[in-house]
Amino acid sequence: MLTSQLKPQQEKSNFIIKTPKGTRDLSPQQMVVREKILDMVVGCFKRHGAKRLDTPAFELKEMLTEKYGEDSGLIYDLKDQGGELLSLRYDLTVPFARYLAMNKVKKMKRYHVGKVWRRESPTIVQGRYREFCQCDFDIAGQFDPMIPDAECLKIMCEILSGLQLGDFIIKVNDRRILDGMFAVCGVPESKFHAICSSIDKLDKISWKDVRHEMVAKKGLAPEVADRIGDYVQCHGGVSLIEQMFQDPRLSQNKQALDGLGDLKLLFEYLTLFGIAEKISFDLSLARGLDYYTGVIYEAVLLQTPTQAQESFNVGSVAAGGRYDKLVGMFDPKGHKVPCVGLSIGVERIFSIVEQRMKTFGQKIRTTETQVFVATPQKNFLHERLKLIAELWDAGIKAELLYKNNPKLLTQLHYCEDMGIPLVVIIGEQEMKEGIIKLRSVASREEVAIKRENLVAEIQKRLSES
Amino acid sequence: MLTSQLKPQQEKSNFIIKTPKGTRDLSPQQMVVREKILDMVVGCFKRHGAKRLDTPAFELKEMLTEKYGEDSGLIYDLKDQGGELLSLRYDLTVPFARYLAMNKVKKMKRYHVGKVWRRESPTIVQGRYREFCQCDFDIAGQFDPMIPDAECLKIMCEILSGLQLGDFIIKVNDRRILDGMFAVCGVPESKFHAICSSIDKLDKISWKDVRHEMVAKKGLAPEVADRIGDYVQCHGGVSLIEQMFQDPRLSQNKQALDGLGDLKLLFEYLTLFGIAEKISFDLSLARGLDYYTGVIYEAVLLQTPTQAQESFNVGSVAAGGRYDKLVGMFDPKGHKVPCVGLSIGVERIFSIVEQRMKTFGQKIRTTETQVFVATPQKNFLHERLKLIAELWDAGIKAELLYKNNPKLLTQLHYCEDMGIPLVVIIGEQEMKEGIIKLRSVASREEVAIKRENLVAEIQKRLSES
Repeated sequence: MLTSQLKPQQEKSNFIIKTPKGTRDLSPQQMVVREKILDMVVGCFKRHGAKRLDTPAFELKEMLTEKYGEDSGLIYDLKDQGGELLSLRYDLTVPFARYLAMNKVKKMKRYHVGKVWRRESPTIVQGRYREFCQCDFDIAGQFDPMIPDAECLKIMCEILSGLQLGDFIIKVNDRRILDGMFAVCGVPESKFHAICSSIDKLDKISWKDVRHEMVAKKGLAPEVADRIGDYVQCHGGVSLIEQMFQDPRLSQNKQALDGLGDLKLLFEYLTLFGIAEKISFDLSLARGLDYYTGVIYEAVLLQTPTQAQESFNVGSVAAGGRYDKLVGMFDPKGHKVPCVGLSIGVERIFSIVEQRMKTFGQKIRTTETQVFVATPQKNFLHERLKLIAELWDAGIKAELLYKNNPKLLTQLHYCEDMGIPLVVIIGEQEMKEGIIKLRSVASREEVAIKRENLVAEIQKRLSES
Repeated sequence: MLTSQLKPQQEKSNFIIKTPKGTRDLSPQQMVVREKILDMVVGCFKRHGAKRLDTPAFELKEMLTEKYGEDSGLIYDLKDQGGELLSLRYDLTVPFARYLAMNKVKKMKRYHVGKVWRRESPTIVQGRYREFCQCDFDIAGQFDPMIPDAECLKIMCEILSGLQLGDFIIKVNDRRILDGMFAVCGVPESKFHAICSSIDKLDKISWKDVRHEMVAKKGLAPEVADRIGDYVQCHGGVSLIEQMFQDPRLSQNKQALDGLGDLKLLFEYLTLFGIAEKISFDLSLARGLDYYTGVIYEAVLLQTPTQAQESFNVGSVAAGGRYDKLVGMFDPKGHKVPCVGLSIGVERIFSIVEQRMKTFGQKIRTTETQVFVATPQKNFLHERLKLIAELWDAGIKAELLYKNNPKLLTQLHYCEDMGIPLVVIIGEQEMKEGIIKLRSVASREEVAIKRENLVAEIQKRLSES
C-alpha cells in the first residue's frame, strides 16, 4: 500500500513534538481576540486613506544588510540551496522602502499587516516572540514639514484609545537632536551608533547601568557620559523644547536646532489634533534601528489594566519615526523618498487583552454558527443533510453532528457548549405535517413553522438579534 | 552623524533591486482583489462552523520529513545559525496535524489562511509562485463515514460557484482504489509511490508521455502500464462506481472495494447536497502528496472566463482528501485522528479574477476615503487640521493634502483620481458665517451647511449612498 510507508515519527528518532523556539500556535480563542484587534487597527489605517500592500516573507539577503545596526545578527537567513541568498524579513519598513525604490514610487500612503522574524532570546513572559505580527502605516513622499508626522502620532493615539488599553504616553525625540547632543557632549562621531544603542536601553535598565555600559564597555570618557546623563533625564512638553533652544551647548549645534524647530512645529499640529497632552518630548528616547533620520516616537502604557493584580510589564506598544534616506539606499541613483511611519506592537496588545479577558473570565465564541440542525429520530441523516444544504445555500451559518444517529441531548448540549443560538429540529411527525420546529437555545422555547417558511423565519430572527 | 553611515546600496555592489525568484509584491490593486476573494472564502468556512487557527511560518525540520514524497526536495530550509534546524512550511496540512497531536486534540473543524513556500521552478505565467497563499478547511475526528468528506466537496462547490469563475468539475478518486488498481494490474508494491506520481501528471502531460515515464524511467513492464492505461481513462458518475464493483480484476481487491463502497456512499450524500452533477469519479486522479489515505479530489475549471481571448490555462483551483494516518505520525503513541480537508488555490483564482478585470477594464478603488478636506485659501492649514481631526474622531474616513497651500484644483483633481465621493471646503468667508461647503465630487453640487451640523450631515449622506 502507498500508506504503509508512513511510520509514526517516534520510531525514527526520540523527538519532542513542539513548535520552534520562540514561536507558538494561535488557538481559535487567540485568533478571535487577534482578529478583533487587527480589524480595529486596520480600520484606523483605512480611515486615514491608506492602501494595503504585501511583500514576500523573505528578501534577497543583501537588501537587509546594513539597515538594522547592532540587531543585524538577529536576522534569520535561509539555507543556501542553490540560487539566491535569502533572509526572512526583519520588519515591514525595509521591504516597503525596497518596494518604493524598485517601482520608482515617489508618493504613497500604505499599510501592511504581516509577520516578521527576529532571532531574539525569547522571554515569552513579556510577550516577545521570534515570530510576531506587525501592523505598519507609512507615508512616503516629499511634503510640507511635520504634517504627515503629526498624522502618524494621531493614528497611534486613535488606536491606543480605541483599544482601551488604559492611559498611555507617546515619547517623542529627534535623531538630529540626539546627534547634536552627542556632539556637544563630546562623543566621538565613530561612537554615535554605539552610544545611541546604549541610550535606547534606558527604558529597560537604569541610567547607572547604561552609564556603566557606555564607559566600561564602549570606552566613553566618564565626564562625557555625565553630560549625556544631564540631558537624557529631561522630558516635558513645548516648554522643554523652548528650554533646549536656549541651552548654551545644544543651541550651538545646527542639527539639534533643526530637530528642535521641527518638534516645535509638530507640537503645533498635535495641539490642533487635540492630542498634545498625550505627547512627551523625551531626550532619552533613542530607538534602536539605524534607518531613522528625524523625528522618532514610542508609545508606552502608563499602567496596564491588570498591573494591580500581576506584574505584567509590556512597555512599548507602538513606535516609529522618520527615515528620509532608506529608499535612497535602494535606488540605483540614490534618489531619496522621504518617509515617516509607525508600527503597532500588536503582539503585546494581544497579550494585554488576553490577560484582561482571563482576569474577567470572559468566554469567547470561536465559531459564528447561527443554526444547528438536529433530530430526535433515528435514520434521519438524509433529511438533515438536505435541510442543512438549504440553509448553507441561503447563506446561513449552520452545523450538524457527523453521526448517523446522534442523541437529541448530545445535539442540544453541543449547541449550549458552542453558543449556537437556534436549533432546527426535524422528525417524522413534523415531516408528515410539513412543519419544522425552531428552538431558541437560550429560552428553550420551541415554535412550529411551515417547512417552506423556515429560511425566511431564521433570517428574520437573526436580523433581530 | 548617525545617518552618515547609510550609503546607497549600489556603491557597495552591482546589485539589481528585485524580489526573490518566484515571489512578488502585491500592489494595492491586487490586495483589493485578494481581500474580496479571501473574504468570500473565509465567509464560506465560517458558514460551515470552522474555527480559525494559525501556526508559525516555520516548523522543526524533522516535522516535515517524510510527509511529501518526491516533493520533499522543494522544502525551504533555514540556515543553521545555532539551535534548532528549521524549514518553512510547505503546506498548512502538516502543521495542522502537528497541532492536533501536540495538543492531543481529537476533534476539530478549523480553517487556516496563510502563506506556504515551495522551491518550485516558477512558471509565473501559469500563476505558480514559490510563495503563495493557501486557504485550508479541515475536519478532524472519528465520525460516521463520508459525512465530513461530503461537506468538504459541498464547500468547494459553494466557493467556486460563489466566485463565479465559470463552469467547473470536481474529480474524485480514492487512494485505496488506486492502490487496488496498481495491485491488480501487477505493479510491484515498491513502485506504488513512483507510479502514483506519474499518474498524477496526467492533467499536465498525455497518457503516452506518462506511459513512457512509467516504462522507461520507472522500469514498469509495458503490459502492466497498458493495464493501468485502461483504468485511468475511465471517468463518470455513480454508474462508473457500479461498473468498477463488477470489474473482474478490481472486484478481487479488498482495498479497492472499500474505496468503491465509500465513494458510493459519498455520492449518496452529494446528491442530497444537490451537487452530484458537479462531481466526476475519475480513476486518473492521483494527487501528489504522500499523506492521503482515502478519498481524494481536485476541482478544475472547464473554461476560464478569459479563455476565449487568451490561452490562460489555470488547471486545478482546489483540492484535498482524507488523511487518516498523518496525526498518528506525530503522536508519541501513534494514536490516530482521522482527517479530511481541502485547500483552495487562491493564487490561481486571483490570477483569473485579475485577468478578467483587466479584460473588462474595471477600475479598482484602493482606498476607502469618504471625505476630502479642502480649501481655496492660503494659510488655512490650521483650520484644515482641526476639521479633519474632528472627522477622524467621528469615524469618518478622511484625507487632506500634506501641503501648507495647495491649489483648489489640485485638491479636487485628487478626489476625482481617487474616487473620493465628498469634499468639505472651508474658507475665510465661510468661517466668519459659521458655515462650511459640502461638495459632491460626482455631481459637482455644493451646499452650505452649518459648521456644527457637518459631521451629522456627512454621516447621513454616507449612509444613504
